Amino acid sequence: MHILILGGGGFIGSRLAREILRNGGFPEHVQRLTLVDFTFPEGMLQDPRLNVVEGDFSEETVIRDVLQEKPDVIYHLAAVVSGEAEKNFELGMKVNFHASLQLLELCRTMGSRPRIVFASSCAVFGGDVSKPVTDDTRPEPRSSYGTQKAMVELLINDYSRRRFIDGRSLRLPTITVRPGKPNAATSSFLSGIIREPLHGIKASYPVAPETEFWLLSPRRVIEDFIHAATLEESRVEDNRVINLPGITASVQEMIDGLGRVTHAEVTQLISCEPDAFLQSIVLTWPPRYDTRRARELGFEGDASVEEIIRYYIEEEGIQL
Amino acid sequence: MHILILGGGGFIGSRLAREILRNGGFPEHVQRLTLVDFTFPEGMLQDPRLNVVEGDFSEETVIRDVLQEKPDVIYHLAAVVSGEAEKNFELGMKVNFHASLQLLELCRTMGSRPRIVFASSCAVFGGDVSKPVTDDTRPEPRSSYGTQKAMVELLINDYSRRRFIDGRSLRLPTITVRPGKPNAATSSFLSGIIREPLHGIKASYPVAPETEFWLLSPRRVIEDFIHAATLEESRVEDNRVINLPGITASVQEMIDGLGRVTHAEVTQLISCEPDAFLQSIVLTWPPRYDTRRARELGFEGDASVEEIIRYYIEEEGIQL
Repeated sequence: MHILILGGGGFIGSRLAREILRNGGFPEHVQRLTLVDFTFPEGMLQDPRLNVVEGDFSEETVIRDVLQEKPDVIYHLAAVVSGEAEKNFELGMKVNFHASLQLLELCRTMGSRPRIVFASSCAVFGGDVSKPVTDDTRPEPRSSYGTQKAMVELLINDYSRRRFIDGRSLRLPTITVRPGKPNAATSSFLSGIIREPLHGIKASYPVAPETEFWLLSPRRVIEDFIHAATLEESRVEDNRVINLPGITASVQEMIDGLGRVTHAEVTQLISCEPDAFLQSIVLTWPPRYDTRRARELGFEGDASVEEIIRYYIEEEGIQL
Repeated sequence: MHILILGGGGFIGSRLAREILRNGGFPEHVQRLTLVDFTFPEGMLQDPRLNVVEGDFSEETVIRDVLQEKPDVIYHLAAVVSGEAEKNFELGMKVNFHASLQLLELCRTMGSRPRIVFASSCAVFGGDVSKPVTDDTRPEPRSSYGTQKAMVELLINDYSRRRFIDGRSLRLPTITVRPGKPNAATSSFLSGIIREPLHGIKASYPVAPETEFWLLSPRRVIEDFIHAATLEESRVEDNRVINLPGITASVQEMIDGLGRVTHAEVTQLISCEPDAFLQSIVLTWPPRYDTRRARELGFEGDASVEEIIRYYIEEEGIQL
């Protein structure tokens, strides 16, 4: 089996690669793993099965070359994040939409019918945040990022129905705690308020502390990505889009969780700094979901905020 | 006021043009009406305000030229019909999706922020046809045509939110009775079973007679198109997509209605000829709707199948 990860140098992509190479869940033997990204983190894993391609996934020649090797499974994680897609409309359309369509078109015209697992987002939802999102809630994006993701979901459903590909679109909750530096995602602070204090650095959040979000840990999302590629097609035949499980937590609950896992003093580093631009996006994301279909299909979320925080501490080897 | 109709030579486009020129409902004076289409019907109306452009709306130069005249309202009715988009995937994507995106992009980059009324379709719905479609039902297209329409709706919402345009997408029921010859729309028979017998010609339908559909007359849809362009933006601010009112009728009810309006003998010309391809598309269209939002916004449907048939007879000047 040959697996391709677009966005394989990113935070989730590189972790997914590591997990796949250590035989994490794939029933078939993985003979080859190709990663495409602009850049790759230092200290990338070394493995004879690994093929690292530095390049722009929105360039047709880059994609055509890797597709010519006929990957069986393609993870499409490459994207411009929500804040960037909102501020730079053309860049968001180019990467999040047009490059995704180009990938699908190349798969169609090359005729290899790969399984494609697409990282969509709960940012396709918006508007009335008081009602829980169910498997039947209509997408109502309030950002260009969410619009672009929703369009690609529609394409993946149609390309799958027509048997050009075998697609699965996972709508990701906010993934937290991300390591490293803050990024341009409008949800970046949801990692920052846990990550920075653990390293003795101040952090802020731009909304009222009682504001709730829909969260998933990096560990669980990687399990879910692997599970998505191993699901039989007959189980997702009619609808390739899956709202992933998560947990609902307010900013205050996250801060309290951090206090319980470490000690209350750590949380003194966190403060509220209202930001109108961030609020205009993140306050349109519904925080409550009923993810029945995903659970029935075997996807899993985290048990608690504390579990999410402990994962991060463990993974980063932080000494408390 | 300057109005542009893309698809202005088509069945609905040319009727809409006629209605606009005879001051049908526009509160502001219409100084100029531009029609773009491949071809125009013989005996097109003559009017000093009329500007007829023969050309392909998917050609950038054609669209750029007409946009340079800064139309205040753009009706976007140009499309490849459902059966054709299903059989010729590339053509459907080119016309129904890419040309629509190009129109929006030109509006964005030219900065004139026109009001755009887009002819979307109830073909964005599919799957479980037993539940009535409401304003909150999620699109679940089971055709490439429906997929392409749903994607353009998402774009129109986002381009409107970002103030690049002021858009409104009307999801049209099946428009019947259409005059002229059968076309490649998978719903073409829903006009044929009324139209052909009225002209003494045999007609057939490809589904069981008890199969229900969601219908709207040409007369009403034109009233609704004009109404859509005159609605204040504040009334559609958050969601530019409107499920138009219609009526639910089975094929048998349509045949019975024809018998009542004319005489039972006429209906002897109609027979059932099952067709698997047509069934695979039309049986995925939900036939029952609750169009509360459209009614509140002032859109109207027909009162009965008989009214729809009488409209056609009157419009075509058929002597019974």
